[in-house]
Amino acid sequence: MAETEETRPSVQESLEQVVELLRQHELAAAPTARGEGDSRRELVETLVHTLHLAELQKLLDGLHPADIAYILESLPVEHRLIVWDLVKTERDGEILLEVSDAVRETLIADMDKAELVAATGQLDADEIADLAPDLPREVIQDVFQSLSLEEREQLRAAMSYPEDTVGALMDFDMISIRDDVTLEVVLRYLRRLDELPDHTDQLFVVDRQAQLTGLLPVNRLLVTDPETAVADAMVKESVRLHPDEKAQDAAAAFERYDLVSAPVVDDMDRLIGRVTVNAVVDYIREETDNEMLSAGGLLEEEDLFASVWKSVKNRWAWLAVNLVTAFIASRVIGLFEHSIAQLVALAALMPIVAGISGNSGNQTITMIVRALALGQITAANARKLFAKEISVSALNGLLWGGVVGLFAFLIYHNWQLGVVMTGAMVLSLVLAAVMGVAIPLTMQKLGRDPALGASVMITAITDSGGFFIFLGLATVFLV
Amino acid sequence: MAETEETRPSVQESLEQVVELLRQHELAAAPTARGEGDSRRELVETLVHTLHLAELQKLLDGLHPADIAYILESLPVEHRLIVWDLVKTERDGEILLEVSDAVRETLIADMDKAELVAATGQLDADEIADLAPDLPREVIQDVFQSLSLEEREQLRAAMSYPEDTVGALMDFDMISIRDDVTLEVVLRYLRRLDELPDHTDQLFVVDRQAQLTGLLPVNRLLVTDPETAVADAMVKESVRLHPDEKAQDAAAAFERYDLVSAPVVDDMDRLIGRVTVNAVVDYIREETDNEMLSAGGLLEEEDLFASVWKSVKNRWAWLAVNLVTAFIASRVIGLFEHSIAQLVALAALMPIVAGISGNSGNQTITMIVRALALGQITAANARKLFAKEISVSALNGLLWGGVVGLFAFLIYHNWQLGVVMTGAMVLSLVLAAVMGVAIPLTMQKLGRDPALGASVMITAITDSGGFFIFLGLATVFLV
Repeated sequence: MAETEETRPSVQESLEQVVELLRQHELAAAPTARGEGDSRRELVETLVHTLHLAELQKLLDGLHPADIAYILESLPVEHRLIVWDLVKTERDGEILLEVSDAVRETLIADMDKAELVAATGQLDADEIADLAPDLPREVIQDVFQSLSLEEREQLRAAMSYPEDTVGALMDFDMISIRDDVTLEVVLRYLRRLDELPDHTDQLFVVDRQAQLTGLLPVNRLLVTDPETAVADAMVKESVRLHPDEKAQDAAAAFERYDLVSAPVVDDMDRLIGRVTVNAVVDYIREETDNEMLSAGGLLEEEDLFASVWKSVKNRWAWLAVNLVTAFIASRVIGLFEHSIAQLVALAALMPIVAGISGNSGNQTITMIVRALALGQITAANARKLFAKEISVSALNGLLWGGVVGLFAFLIYHNWQLGVVMTGAMVLSLVLAAVMGVAIPLTMQKLGRDPALGASVMITAITDSGGFFIFLGLATVFLV
Repeated sequence: MAETEETRPSVQESLEQVVELLRQHELAAAPTARGEGDSRRELVETLVHTLHLAELQKLLDGLHPADIAYILESLPVEHRLIVWDLVKTERDGEILLEVSDAVRETLIADMDKAELVAATGQLDADEIADLAPDLPREVIQDVFQSLSLEEREQLRAAMSYPEDTVGALMDFDMISIRDDVTLEVVLRYLRRLDELPDHTDQLFVVDRQAQLTGLLPVNRLLVTDPETAVADAMVKESVRLHPDEKAQDAAAAFERYDLVSAPVVDDMDRLIGRVTVNAVVDYIREETDNEMLSAGGLLEEEDLFASVWKSVKNRWAWLAVNLVTAFIASRVIGLFEHSIAQLVALAALMPIVAGISGNSGNQTITMIVRALALGQITAANARKLFAKEISVSALNGLLWGGVVGLFAFLIYHNWQLGVVMTGAMVLSLVLAAVMGVAIPLTMQKLGRDPALGASVMITAITDSGGFFIFLGLATVFLV
């Protein structure tokens, strides 16, 4: 954790303090639960008990909502709920926004309707939209009633965009100005506000039809002569996002052009919102987290302290897929049981061929998926890539196939077996290369996400294919 | 790519235009190379040739450096160098900063010393430090001579920090002010500057010893009465980074507290630089990219159009590791060749046990590595996690082991084989769970990165372990 001033402990230190206080709290609580005890002892225990909770509450009050969210995520459910009850109601909303989906579920399950309405009521429309999928319908209705007309419109808009679009990242906290006033007027206007929205690095210049005509960077406002008109100081050319655009593309624009905020406009170029870099950072982190989880075969982010049953459900879909591919590979081996019975060394050697070609196929697929994600593969260079990957694999096949063949010869003193092994390695590595390029390209063409499941498919193919090639060659030449 | 105004095409569109112009350029160039041709035809071709390059140059001049970098990365090496030669020299430096390491290498190899010195000379000290590892020593010496004393000091400092530290993310473009003046004075001071550094969302307040005493957010500067003293308007408590801190921790602070910039101070609390959100976004993207590449078994980022030989070298280390683990698994199977010879069905069924437990172990490890990265695992909850993962795996083992056992029975009409299969699945899934928790925790304790190689280790263990358990049980109960 980033070190901070002496007055501000790091979030890890805070977590340790919380765990320690909870431990003391439990120690104090435990005897009263067990023994009968005289009432004075009970009273003392209750006091100590209360003292720890009071200290805990004081500690929590001083923490940033994001830090409280972190602490809640790091605690087992029973401790999590004790801490959650101690958090001031007016901070509930902000904290719910910060915790992971899985943990949010456990917190919301602990709150009654009135608490949820109170927590949600303090948020902005775009934030309510983020929480909405996890809230009971009555809560949303109640909150909706309490909003102003403009906020209702914003909430309706924000809730209408699918998760991976710019619309879902958008907020409505922007300052818009006209282009026919001077910077002096703008400065005076700003000074009448109590504070500017977070991440206000630019003001949005709109005309009477609410159409975006330009952007006035705050930094330019500060260095330019106040007598200048907004129209002369503003930047006209800029990135403009549309609410239906993919969030991924917006994130790429933020990365590429080092943006802090960007306007979102509708088809008529009317300003409807903005996206800020903190939403983009959260999006990038979430997206890469999801990639990591799905690469590991987890359906969704799992609460570290989820129940066993929930975890089993989160994981079994992937195991089932794996089982099907393993069954198929098993049946491929079954085809050659006759050969294996005659030359049992085949059974010991076949996982080597399948394993190495699976590994090599995954290397190719990692490269291609990455290049596709960056949009770097065109029809013109796809053929080049095929040729390159096949050459790389054939070379690796000769190299490692030679090593493996030597190994087979040394162990089984059978040079024909060694040669078959080398040949099988070359062929299955080439198969892995071809499929490693073809699978993601085909998925892309079919309009599917090439990253999703590509690794499972290549492994399935290299397993069954590797067994088939090796056992097939052995059957033809050795048995 | 983010849509932009009509006047600004997306980077993909620019890439397509570049590819088209290069194609026409080659078409025009090709005949002159082949045929003899009369001189008039030759002249026309040369003209067309030149026209295409002139058009290409015009196109490139209008593009953002990041977009040119993207285009360079997407082109095969020979085309890449044509485009690179057309880029104006004064933009070379910025573009070198934006391209990936692998592509940067190909560009630098194409430049002579004078070009490199010219390109580098226009950059800030922190940017030169980023390029330095890829530049020839003489170039760095020349550039160093051309810097001012202050810049030399900055360059020396920036180059002294290891790659994954705050020091490596830091820049020196900050505005510092004193706390004893009024905001009016600050505003006047800013107005004398031509422009403010990018990402200036706050000014740094320092005392006479250059010690950081506070921060003045630009947004606060704008809304506060100009008569107020800086000391009364500034924020005192804030995140302060240290140059030796891990970059990862700084990134976590940016994410958690939604920062745009943060001060970097030395041990005496003296301001030495700042970190901005764009450096953090680039760092996060790079870090997750590296994770993805190493998960796929690639040593480093690979130029999509790298030579075959380079690619082979980039990939073979991982294949070698894989080969060793496959050899071990093969020898484990070799121990039971006698059993396999007697019951050849074992050869067909054994990859199922190894595959599923590998998959399950990887699920566990993904969870644990993620929780470790977030710092959420304490001594107190580690035992809970072991218990949970073992329960999840035992349940999954019974469930899928049952399915697999039934499958074995249906195919081989041998119920004992089915029971052995189910038992082997439960045991190897439990082994996978125990190792899936133990490996990352142990690596963490030994001070190593738990994400690195954990997946290879678990797969090695579940492969050899799965084969051993299944074949061992079969040998005891069936043969």
